[in-house]
Amino acid sequence: MVVGLVETAVPTAKSTISSVVKKPTFLSSDPIINVARGDPTIYEPYWKKMGDRCKVVIAGDEFMSYFCNTMNLCWFLLPELDNAIRTLHRVVGNAMVDDDRFIIVGNGSTQLFHALLYALSSPDLPEPINVVAAAPFYSSYPEETKFLQSKLYKWAGDANCYDKDEPYIEVVTSPNNPDGSIRGTVVNREGSKAIHDLAYYWPQYAPITSKADHDAMLFTFSKATGHAGTRIGWAIVKDKVIAAKMVKFIEVSSIGVSREAQLRAAKILGVIADDCRNPDHKGENLFQYGRRLMSERWGKLREVGMKSNGVFSACQSTHEIIANSPANTLIQTLLLHG
Amino acid sequence: MVVGLVETAVPTAKSTISSVVKKPTFLSSDPIINVARGDPTIYEPYWKKMGDRCKVVIAGDEFMSYFCNTMNLCWFLLPELDNAIRTLHRVVGNAMVDDDRFIIVGNGSTQLFHALLYALSSPDLPEPINVVAAAPFYSSYPEETKFLQSKLYKWAGDANCYDKDEPYIEVVTSPNNPDGSIRGTVVNREGSKAIHDLAYYWPQYAPITSKADHDAMLFTFSKATGHAGTRIGWAIVKDKVIAAKMVKFIEVSSIGVSREAQLRAAKILGVIADDCRNPDHKGENLFQYGRRLMSERWGKLREVGMKSNGVFSACQSTHEIIANSPANTLIQTLLLHG
Repeated sequence: MVVGLVETAVPTAKSTISSVVKKPTFLSSDPIINVARGDPTIYEPYWKKMGDRCKVVIAGDEFMSYFCNTMNLCWFLLPELDNAIRTLHRVVGNAMVDDDRFIIVGNGSTQLFHALLYALSSPDLPEPINVVAAAPFYSSYPEETKFLQSKLYKWAGDANCYDKDEPYIEVVTSPNNPDGSIRGTVVNREGSKAIHDLAYYWPQYAPITSKADHDAMLFTFSKATGHAGTRIGWAIVKDKVIAAKMVKFIEVSSIGVSREAQLRAAKILGVIADDCRNPDHKGENLFQYGRRLMSERWGKLREVGMKSNGVFSACQSTHEIIANSPANTLIQTLLLHG
Repeated sequence: MVVGLVETAVPTAKSTISSVVKKPTFLSSDPIINVARGDPTIYEPYWKKMGDRCKVVIAGDEFMSYFCNTMNLCWFLLPELDNAIRTLHRVVGNAMVDDDRFIIVGNGSTQLFHALLYALSSPDLPEPINVVAAAPFYSSYPEETKFLQSKLYKWAGDANCYDKDEPYIEVVTSPNNPDGSIRGTVVNREGSKAIHDLAYYWPQYAPITSKADHDAMLFTFSKATGHAGTRIGWAIVKDKVIAAKMVKFIEVSSIGVSREAQLRAAKILGVIADDCRNPDHKGENLFQYGRRLMSERWGKLREVGMKSNGVFSACQSTHEIIANSPANTLIQTLLLHG
């Protein structure tokens, strides 16, 4: 879900993307590193090199139905995408995707974040459930939570300061946006609920140390591969009731997810998995390519930082990135700017 | 927005689509006309005949960006789709799409319905704004409105019975789902707001008597062409502030709309417009084809109705369809079942 088009480490009610519209030259060519705007087209040259391997062709009479698989709880999930997601996670080893886990596809993981807020809250509670995240957190979480003024959930701020004796949902982003740190829950009260946003838990951004196996995990195609215009995210969910509530949310919100986007995501994730499993006949796979780019960009960034006489300082140790710029978005900076 | 996968004329809190998952044989082959389930694949043979004209090909390195057009208020709307929508409406003459109208694309018009509820409500009002529709109305409206228990808007039932002296939004579906009637607002109080859902205001479902020119109009690709798996809807909006709020809603909900689906919708809408403008070298255009199918189905339905000894009675006069079946969905029946 961590998409960070335009973001700061400080929660803000103002639209972050709308500002781009007002100033369309969002990818500046001037020498200032603009950490507040960006667009993850970093992998474009990589996919260009793939040629026809990632091409999709869709005939006019395909995908006329609402339904992708009526035997699946997530009836709007294309079986090819379900399979590609599970295969890639198994190859990479970054998330548990045994067959008893439910995969829910969304229009970007942003929609799945909303779906999880709905699924983890309850109309039976006397008060909206509190939603917290440890600062610094992705700047859109507060806005997304507060947006429709739901009586089901409400934004309750920094998890580090959360001391209410009330039910809560903790949003954990790991590696974190904006600071790249590896994270777990910080409140840790019995009966708590958590959303684990693992948008950046891929080999180009972080060392994969174990298969993540949380109750509800979010991933997004845009950060895994750079295809931001393809609004595809997926959740891996253990509990069937939660999964069913998420499906319901996406049914009521948008009656599913476009098949064309799912088909393309399935194709591209499949190619990545193939290249990881068969390294002999290809050059760099996506993760190796991305890791090299991140390292090069990190080098440039550090250089600029050193020249800037302490405007920001940063260190990187096994991809743990710490920055103290007032509006730092280091992961985004690395990802979006050369 | 009127999609009517599984619906009755009676509001229900129960998921209508989920029941399909439980009973996957949703398109029954038995002789009973099942008006409660369906999938609009009626036009599949038509599109099959189109062959490569409607084929889309997408390379792996295309559509990497979040942005479709940063100069447009609706920055996630593909210019090709914007152009195809305006062109088709001009050719058909069913909606005013002058350049001062804003086109907002959504993940199905379902998402745009939610966007309009958000855009037409106000956090400054002391109470949630009332949302009404004249019965019989599309069964999902109440659920979609109540779903997240927003403090911004609330479902207030049948517009025919609305007598509160409070602000309200009236949802008008014309031709109406489920009964096919041509409709206008029924409350007509000063300062009112309306959502005009014109999903079926196309030549195969209704005579096009004028260019609709309401403040906020919804259309959906699934009913215009039968491509339900492509979650594309569009709104035509007069007021810039409302349009901007809708864009904001879709930004916060899903960061836009998949480019692949938009590209495909643009291609297919373009082919329809071309065939309407150049009738000489083709057979039936989509609307002629659809109209013929509707007539055939209407004939069959009437026959069944006569044999059923008054279980339902119906009449059709210039596509005004009236039915008194307890769970009638006549438009759906015509559309979905042969």
